Amino acid sequence: MEAKIEFIPEGTITSPRGFRAGAASVGLKKEAEHALDLGILSSEAPCVAAALFTTNRIKAAPIVFCQQRLQGGRAAALVVNSGCANAFTGEQGLRDAAEMAGLAAERIGLSPEDVLVASTGVIGEKLPMQLIRPGIEQMVLSTEGGHSLVRAMMTTDTVPKEVAARVDGSGFIIGGVAKGSGMIHPDLATMLCFLTTDAAVDLDFLRSALRKAVDISFNMISVDGDTSTNDMVLIMANGLAGNRPISPDSRQAGIFQQALDRVCIYLAKSIARDGEGASKLIEVTVSGATGVAEAKVAARTIVSSPLVKTAIYGNDPNWGRIVAAAGRSGIEVVESKIDLYIGGVCLVKEGNPLPFDKGSIVELLKKSDVSIGLHLNLGTASATAWGCDLSEEYVVINSQYTT
Amino acid sequence: MEAKIEFIPEGTITSPRGFRAGAASVGLKKEAEHALDLGILSSEAPCVAAALFTTNRIKAAPIVFCQQRLQGGRAAALVVNSGCANAFTGEQGLRDAAEMAGLAAERIGLSPEDVLVASTGVIGEKLPMQLIRPGIEQMVLSTEGGHSLVRAMMTTDTVPKEVAARVDGSGFIIGGVAKGSGMIHPDLATMLCFLTTDAAVDLDFLRSALRKAVDISFNMISVDGDTSTNDMVLIMANGLAGNRPISPDSRQAGIFQQALDRVCIYLAKSIARDGEGASKLIEVTVSGATGVAEAKVAARTIVSSPLVKTAIYGNDPNWGRIVAAAGRSGIEVVESKIDLYIGGVCLVKEGNPLPFDKGSIVELLKKSDVSIGLHLNLGTASATAWGCDLSEEYVVINSQYTT
Repeated sequence: MEAKIEFIPEGTITSPRGFRAGAASVGLKKEAEHALDLGILSSEAPCVAAALFTTNRIKAAPIVFCQQRLQGGRAAALVVNSGCANAFTGEQGLRDAAEMAGLAAERIGLSPEDVLVASTGVIGEKLPMQLIRPGIEQMVLSTEGGHSLVRAMMTTDTVPKEVAARVDGSGFIIGGVAKGSGMIHPDLATMLCFLTTDAAVDLDFLRSALRKAVDISFNMISVDGDTSTNDMVLIMANGLAGNRPISPDSRQAGIFQQALDRVCIYLAKSIARDGEGASKLIEVTVSGATGVAEAKVAARTIVSSPLVKTAIYGNDPNWGRIVAAAGRSGIEVVESKIDLYIGGVCLVKEGNPLPFDKGSIVELLKKSDVSIGLHLNLGTASATAWGCDLSEEYVVINSQYTT
Repeated sequence: MEAKIEFIPEGTITSPRGFRAGAASVGLKKEAEHALDLGILSSEAPCVAAALFTTNRIKAAPIVFCQQRLQGGRAAALVVNSGCANAFTGEQGLRDAAEMAGLAAERIGLSPEDVLVASTGVIGEKLPMQLIRPGIEQMVLSTEGGHSLVRAMMTTDTVPKEVAARVDGSGFIIGGVAKGSGMIHPDLATMLCFLTTDAAVDLDFLRSALRKAVDISFNMISVDGDTSTNDMVLIMANGLAGNRPISPDSRQAGIFQQALDRVCIYLAKSIARDGEGASKLIEVTVSGATGVAEAKVAARTIVSSPLVKTAIYGNDPNWGRIVAAAGRSGIEVVESKIDLYIGGVCLVKEGNPLPFDKGSIVELLKKSDVSIGLHLNLGTASATAWGCDLSEEYVVINSQYTT
């Protein structure tokens, strides 16, 4: 069944029923004095909650803290800061994370066990708790507060990333906010994404649905290997829509998954488009692969190749870099079967380079969205990955960060 | 036994007995009109030969050609061009490679089966044979010709990379030339390395010695994933030193391996230092790992991290990026055991950041050689990797290549 999924104008993480949020500026971002840098998200009803965390062996204190706290699959609030990642901070880092959660619980009137913590910023510095304590104590929450919360998470992001979607006839809403990721937003604690829904959802189903949605969205943007110490995707479902809890056998299971996929893909693409120094979004679809895993590997390899990224930045139709990236991705590739498209124009057919009008391809590459289609013609599987171009500005931003 | 290995002043690939080379400018490099772009290397005696090739599934025609030709482990000459990679060129590419070999054989007076071919340059364009044919026919070889051959291989390389080493008392010499690699010299056909020796060497031993030397040299420089379609490391041993052929049980086996290691590491470091847009060499040593494979993975991950590379370019002592790269490399890492050194100065001891004088670390980072030492304190294995910093110049070079 194809669900009618509708994006809500100005939708955000507080669009689902019963969620409130707030943010404050407490001075954690040295380079931006009055920027929002601390926020709280809270649900008026307890939530079923699931999360995915960074695979980095060096895990920030908030990650370790949330992994423990989420074992039971329940939460009701989240406190988040930018400007300091609370990563590589040892025992003190864990104590600081716990204190943040405790203070937020006190402010909202919850049990400390119901509060999660996230941080993003420089690695290896302790949290300035003297700034955070008064900030939490004075925090004001509202149902419009999602728009502030998303700004309090930003580091080198240039635009806030927020969305909410309603499924026609289902009665529930899924909202979300995210901040930058991967190579794109490197050791600023990389990617954070928080999702809310007022749907009632069975915990096991929520965990599986989140995993599936993340696999085709955040796991398909150009993270280039620099996986952060602080990556986290969290979903909280408070059940206030009043539906029967969704489980794998529910009539609504498929619609919920589709809506969650759409929301995650929207946020993932927003992150890719807003990469550090990026001027455009690159969408790579690999089809005709022998399996989905193979198609994913090839699409991700192409979209994160520095050579493909610099060529697209320079509007250079240097397509050899695209097939070379596919070739070294490790999947099966047969030169004589490859078709390659840029912006819908076929440049290679069954391994043979076609003559093309360079000027018109350069014009296609100058657009804000560049699509690459690689048909392997070996099977029936396909996958799409998203990334951004690589400019001098990326180097400038990343060579002048702590100094 | 520690061999006394001596680098020969002005040594090159024609330093071992019986090797001659020559080069010509035939107009293959559109952007550099009179640059050398075609070369021949020849041995007066037949050689035992071994080679390692790119793992890219899209293999250039010269790679496919050499893989077939080297199955017997014998060769006597090599013809190489820059400016065009002869990659993604189908059946015509294979015919062109065979014709190049045939013409070179005719010029030198060898059987065509004894000649190998290598190409480097743009992917997806056919070899301009009308330029190559007269170039080969008029080629003049000499024992000083190694210095010209190495220039004929250059693409965006800024300096030629050549070396020769003599082992005291062994009577033999190993010489070599190389051109740029990996992310560093991306789709200019990436890395080529040719090695010669006048030692007599058993084929199986030569193959194994080359594999070992490459594993700790070329495989440890920052290739960043953009493995080329044309990568190739070749060694030819003509036996004119008159020694008894070296086999694994020979008294000289150890010395030969050490000398080959030294030559390969010298050339690999030269490639890393001359990376596109690079201003310095980065050397990363990971020690205290649970195994050599683990140490290698961590060292390579750190040295190829865009965040580490940009930080070092900006002389930024942002050490959090180094431990984060180690953490996401996939190997075992325990935060509370990590010691970290930059330029010999300890910044982290047993997981605790130490106070340090930022100004003095910035001075260390400004040097042309930057060393990073990461002690995992989990085992006894170690490995070293080499790379270069990432500058705006890299983006400029790679966004303006074919257009």
